[in-house]
Amino acid sequence: MGEFDLIARYFARPGPPGRSVALGVGDDCALLQPAPGMQLAVSSDMLVEGRHFFADVYPAHLGHKALAVNLSDLAACGARPLAFTLALALPRVDEVWLQGFAEGLLALADEHGCALVGGDTTQGPLNLCITVFGEVAPGQALLRSGARPGDDIWVSGTPGEARLALDALRGQLHAAPEVLAALRQRLERPTPRVALGRRLAGLASSAIDVSDGLLGDLSHILSASRAGARIDVDAAADLLAASACLSGAGGCFDHHLLMRCALAGGDDYELAFTAPPARREAVCQAGRDSGTSVTRIGAVEAAPGLRLVDGAGQPVQGRFPSFDHFA
Amino acid sequence: MGEFDLIARYFARPGPPGRSVALGVGDDCALLQPAPGMQLAVSSDMLVEGRHFFADVYPAHLGHKALAVNLSDLAACGARPLAFTLALALPRVDEVWLQGFAEGLLALADEHGCALVGGDTTQGPLNLCITVFGEVAPGQALLRSGARPGDDIWVSGTPGEARLALDALRGQLHAAPEVLAALRQRLERPTPRVALGRRLAGLASSAIDVSDGLLGDLSHILSASRAGARIDVDAAADLLAASACLSGAGGCFDHHLLMRCALAGGDDYELAFTAPPARREAVCQAGRDSGTSVTRIGAVEAAPGLRLVDGAGQPVQGRFPSFDHFA
Repeated sequence: MGEFDLIARYFARPGPPGRSVALGVGDDCALLQPAPGMQLAVSSDMLVEGRHFFADVYPAHLGHKALAVNLSDLAACGARPLAFTLALALPRVDEVWLQGFAEGLLALADEHGCALVGGDTTQGPLNLCITVFGEVAPGQALLRSGARPGDDIWVSGTPGEARLALDALRGQLHAAPEVLAALRQRLERPTPRVALGRRLAGLASSAIDVSDGLLGDLSHILSASRAGARIDVDAAADLLAASACLSGAGGCFDHHLLMRCALAGGDDYELAFTAPPARREAVCQAGRDSGTSVTRIGAVEAAPGLRLVDGAGQPVQGRFPSFDHFA
Repeated sequence: MGEFDLIARYFARPGPPGRSVALGVGDDCALLQPAPGMQLAVSSDMLVEGRHFFADVYPAHLGHKALAVNLSDLAACGARPLAFTLALALPRVDEVWLQGFAEGLLALADEHGCALVGGDTTQGPLNLCITVFGEVAPGQALLRSGARPGDDIWVSGTPGEARLALDALRGQLHAAPEVLAALRQRLERPTPRVALGRRLAGLASSAIDVSDGLLGDLSHILSASRAGARIDVDAAADLLAASACLSGAGGCFDHHLLMRCALAGGDDYELAFTAPPARREAVCQAGRDSGTSVTRIGAVEAAPGLRLVDGAGQPVQGRFPSFDHFA
């Protein structure tokens, strides 16, 4: 099967290309027609075998995740997904793999009304690069730079689940089969918080998606906002201990392990965000409306640096380095 | 050096992010603000070592080429470049390589007023994925589907030079050092025909950029336009024989070799396009205004299929398969 058959067979869809898409797959360029006056939010992520996923991952899960990590960037910006391009380097044409990959990818795309509008395929070591496009009203995009001293610090979902799964898959942690199965879903099929992100646009003062570890990603908000923060590390660990994935057995895990996974696990694709205390009820409502749990884990402060405290407000020592692709 | 330092050091630019760019590198998403009513043209290309370039290519040439092949897609669409994202998998952080790569990339970007607005870096086998954005007025984009029987078929520049360079570098062809140096520039530093493409918008009836071979890419126009064509293969070979790269010695090369390189060489990044005969003078003027040579090499016909003829109009036998990344 050649390059053009491959695109047509697995990735071309019948029907109109989608909302705001004037021309989809099949020409030199796709043509997008953004709604008048709207801004276009753009993000690219590249996934490499052995670095971002195991070689034996289910292809459908990989298709899901490749798009999910990009949609997560739109979520962190408060944008509405419109379309994406896919560039794919494959060692060989494996039809079973392609079929599964396309199914996982396009199922998530359909869920978000996000049309595949173009891309590229080539022979090479397995590599997936997606660029995603969303729209957001001018001035409404959530940026990293808007946090102000006194703002609450919030996180969606349960950071740390993906890292627990990774440790268990690597044999560094024992988990019962049903627990591992549930955790593995969080690692391989993360839920991009698009619905929450759109509700936070104009409400939160800053946001970022948690991909390299909660503290590390929060530090990007603090650095862009020229501020510091106090983080309740017990709150983060307790959140993970109560994870539904752990089937009520979260208390059996070592508290420090849970703390490390929650604060520096990575691959969470949750949103970390800030908002003034006066908007607490509105933030909780945004969580309820989007079916996403939101938890306060700290506060922005004027003094630079991250201050880790326990549930009683006492300082905690500890380093939680975030993930660096070249470290 | 970590991932974030790498982006800041080599790829972040001082000053405003650029025309139509509301927010550049450094947040979860970039924000583009297209001019009211304009369409956004989008294209992605992925380049893999050993497949699209040699491991020992000058990094500055590679940076140039990675963006050039994407700008070439905008050119084929008649769009004005605005911005691009870069996703980069690197085996290791090699500062000399990165410096050179960024220089070549950003020099071409500046030439076209095309701002780097975001992307991704990761550790992995060398892979470059660029997604480029341009703007074009609704209804003005050059598509593959607009060719009509009777239209002239044109090509820009001199297809085949890049393939002569490749054959010479592989030792399959002898070329004098100065000839090889000139040809190699065409292979490694192709000129995207953006200025010509923009002038052809609203003038040509269809266009495509020649990346996989002239006849193969033309066949995409014919298939999308449900038409056939007659191509003067001597005209294409004579064009290559007269290439300035060959320093007047083009006549010393085998005519059939030149024909094969011109018709099926690949990596040309020239434009193949069609236009009604009544617009010949306007097409020539577009070529002059953009400093790009344009040559008529055939005509669109109603009967499907490609008919190859010699300079006297007599049928020529020959197969010229185009490049397929999985063949």
